[in-house]
Amino acid sequence: MAKLQHQAAETVHTGAGEVGKFIRWAVAALLVGGSVGTVIGLFRMAVSWAVQSRAQHPALLFAVPLAGLLIVWLYRSCGLSTDPGTDYMLLSVRTNPGVQLRMVPLIAVSTVLTHLCGGSAGRMGAALQMGGSISGALGHWARMDEKDCHIMTMCGMAAGFSALFGTPLTAAVFAMEVISVGEMYYAAFFPCLLSAFCSFLVTGAMGLPADAYQVAAVPALSLVSIGQVALMGAACALAARLFCSGLRFARYAYGRLLPNPYFRILTGGGLLILLTLLAGSQAYNGAGTDVVIRAFAGEARPEAFLLKILFTSVTLGAGYKGGDIAPAFFTGATLGCVLAPVCGLPASFGAGLGLAGVFCGVTNCPLTSILLAYELFGGAGLPLYALCCAVSYMLSGYCSLYGAQKILYSKFRAEYIAGNR
Amino acid sequence: MAKLQHQAAETVHTGAGEVGKFIRWAVAALLVGGSVGTVIGLFRMAVSWAVQSRAQHPALLFAVPLAGLLIVWLYRSCGLSTDPGTDYMLLSVRTNPGVQLRMVPLIAVSTVLTHLCGGSAGRMGAALQMGGSISGALGHWARMDEKDCHIMTMCGMAAGFSALFGTPLTAAVFAMEVISVGEMYYAAFFPCLLSAFCSFLVTGAMGLPADAYQVAAVPALSLVSIGQVALMGAACALAARLFCSGLRFARYAYGRLLPNPYFRILTGGGLLILLTLLAGSQAYNGAGTDVVIRAFAGEARPEAFLLKILFTSVTLGAGYKGGDIAPAFFTGATLGCVLAPVCGLPASFGAGLGLAGVFCGVTNCPLTSILLAYELFGGAGLPLYALCCAVSYMLSGYCSLYGAQKILYSKFRAEYIAGNR
Repeated sequence: MAKLQHQAAETVHTGAGEVGKFIRWAVAALLVGGSVGTVIGLFRMAVSWAVQSRAQHPALLFAVPLAGLLIVWLYRSCGLSTDPGTDYMLLSVRTNPGVQLRMVPLIAVSTVLTHLCGGSAGRMGAALQMGGSISGALGHWARMDEKDCHIMTMCGMAAGFSALFGTPLTAAVFAMEVISVGEMYYAAFFPCLLSAFCSFLVTGAMGLPADAYQVAAVPALSLVSIGQVALMGAACALAARLFCSGLRFARYAYGRLLPNPYFRILTGGGLLILLTLLAGSQAYNGAGTDVVIRAFAGEARPEAFLLKILFTSVTLGAGYKGGDIAPAFFTGATLGCVLAPVCGLPASFGAGLGLAGVFCGVTNCPLTSILLAYELFGGAGLPLYALCCAVSYMLSGYCSLYGAQKILYSKFRAEYIAGNR
Repeated sequence: MAKLQHQAAETVHTGAGEVGKFIRWAVAALLVGGSVGTVIGLFRMAVSWAVQSRAQHPALLFAVPLAGLLIVWLYRSCGLSTDPGTDYMLLSVRTNPGVQLRMVPLIAVSTVLTHLCGGSAGRMGAALQMGGSISGALGHWARMDEKDCHIMTMCGMAAGFSALFGTPLTAAVFAMEVISVGEMYYAAFFPCLLSAFCSFLVTGAMGLPADAYQVAAVPALSLVSIGQVALMGAACALAARLFCSGLRFARYAYGRLLPNPYFRILTGGGLLILLTLLAGSQAYNGAGTDVVIRAFAGEARPEAFLLKILFTSVTLGAGYKGGDIAPAFFTGATLGCVLAPVCGLPASFGAGLGLAGVFCGVTNCPLTSILLAYELFGGAGLPLYALCCAVSYMLSGYCSLYGAQKILYSKFRAEYIAGNR
């Protein structure tokens, strides 16, 4: 009896401590969500302005080498000669390289410049870096210890993702899943989710809409549709490998041939102008949201996905800033739209499969990809999207957009491989 | 150039190997899904027959001690004096205790007997054991090595779950997530998903419907609804702790006071009759699906969730067979239905939150719980269900339905704890 009483007292004590920690994380997460949501909201407005300006003045493209020089100069004068990009955030969650708050305005301005002059890039890399840096700084100021700062960084990444795309659930799971593939940082789940919700509400209040794509028709689950979708998944895996290899090769080749960053970005800008003139349109510059929307309406050119990989590699490899997620969406949606009718599936559904599948292949985040399909396309046919992501995950090899991402387990066997890759 | 050619040749070689493994797993997964789906389909029909028989002849309750004696005798005469239940499947994925195919008819008959005579239990534990045993045996026969047999066992669990509830996506993620909390067995994702799809299609073809509950109204995401749902999540965490403690205490007390399994189950049967007579209805016997459906319509008694925990502990602790998931659903749905109006939420939505939240608390599988909410209630309001699950996960402590489940990381800090709990 005395033992039971003791146990009960201990349970109450532990329970009170847990509720305290819970409230502490709730407050921290709301602060992160509020601040990151506001900053990313403003950033979205700035990028939108850049996109509209370029639409009105297509000749801005010819300023892209100039914009490049400005970006390199800005980074150098801030003492950041090598920018690790999203990798820096992944490393921040595992180790503690210190907070670099000056990165926030720097990456924002560089990304806006890239979009203004027609570099082929997205905004996600910037949003993750901005979110993670702000929340890391908040944790530092609140004198949190190293492990709590890691959770804070994840919260900031989730809030940044959520504010950008308006997909809070996807954003929270992404922050937990992306760091080490095969390991889930569940301790960060509640804080990340709350931060993501909060930044989503903040951007909503600023009048910025969530991303959403209309998928016209989804087939029922059957042995036939399973086979068709598995084929699409394999194609997504190939495209993901190509995407990662293209980016890696471009970084390697630029670095090898043009060690001077000014010359490198100048050459990249020149190449970009040349490629745009050859392509005969600006469809492959910027994030290309309009092309993605057309792919969901069932319209895409067969070569679009290859050209997007080329444009993006030329842009990001040269040192322009932005993200690689929107280009991955573009690649997936256009490929899927073209390939689906060949597999006997509706083109619009194919665009959805492609978008989710390529995202999964380049990030190695299958559960995030499933929730992404839910939040971007609504709930219909989610099991089939999941299958596409599962196949793409399995066959995309160990490539990744993020060099700092660890893939802990074999994709084919229940065995640990992180040590010997 | 020669290096590039060599790399290309190597890539093609690796690629061919990967496609081979992919096809091999596709075939294995389809076989598992087909066989497990058929067996679980028949099992579902048998349990339905038992449930209908008891509805027609409520007096069958008085045969529950007799059914208990029969169950103990069956297990003993098959040489299985201690039945490890679902834990056996969890262990099978990590170690290799050998295949026990005779468990399949044994657990099926025992579960049907339990349902026929009004024991308070579900079917999930049985389905997981049956699925995992069948697929483990298939892997053994196909001379797969130990690590591949582990994936086979997971496929069987996914197929069993999927055939039982008609929720293939949830089932596949459950098999990956439940074994070691914090570690994701992604290598099993594609095979598990395919097995789950296949067994879902097989049970569908047998005319067995998927489970689904109608949630009347879902509030929009706002700071108010976030606060309300977080409160519900905390309540789910408490209920989950109570549920696990009740079951554990019952097992401990029965084992301590009545070491003889015949006496133990006889006493349990007697207690069950007594409790049913005191309750004045058979609402707490069996799986209680009708009560869950009423909770989703907004109707539940405030004490229902406590009584269900009591009935289930008395039943399963005594040695009756079945599952603990349906009773957890019952507990969550009735608690949520009663508590939601107090928190300012619709009762029907509360039932959904409670079901998903308590499931999350007792299984420690947050991502499975989110997909469960998607597949059982449709897609509306998924972010709020996710929040309920996140809070329930965080506050439910380190209790679990499964003694063999490892919780690898702290629920509050980004730190490894599996070694020192």
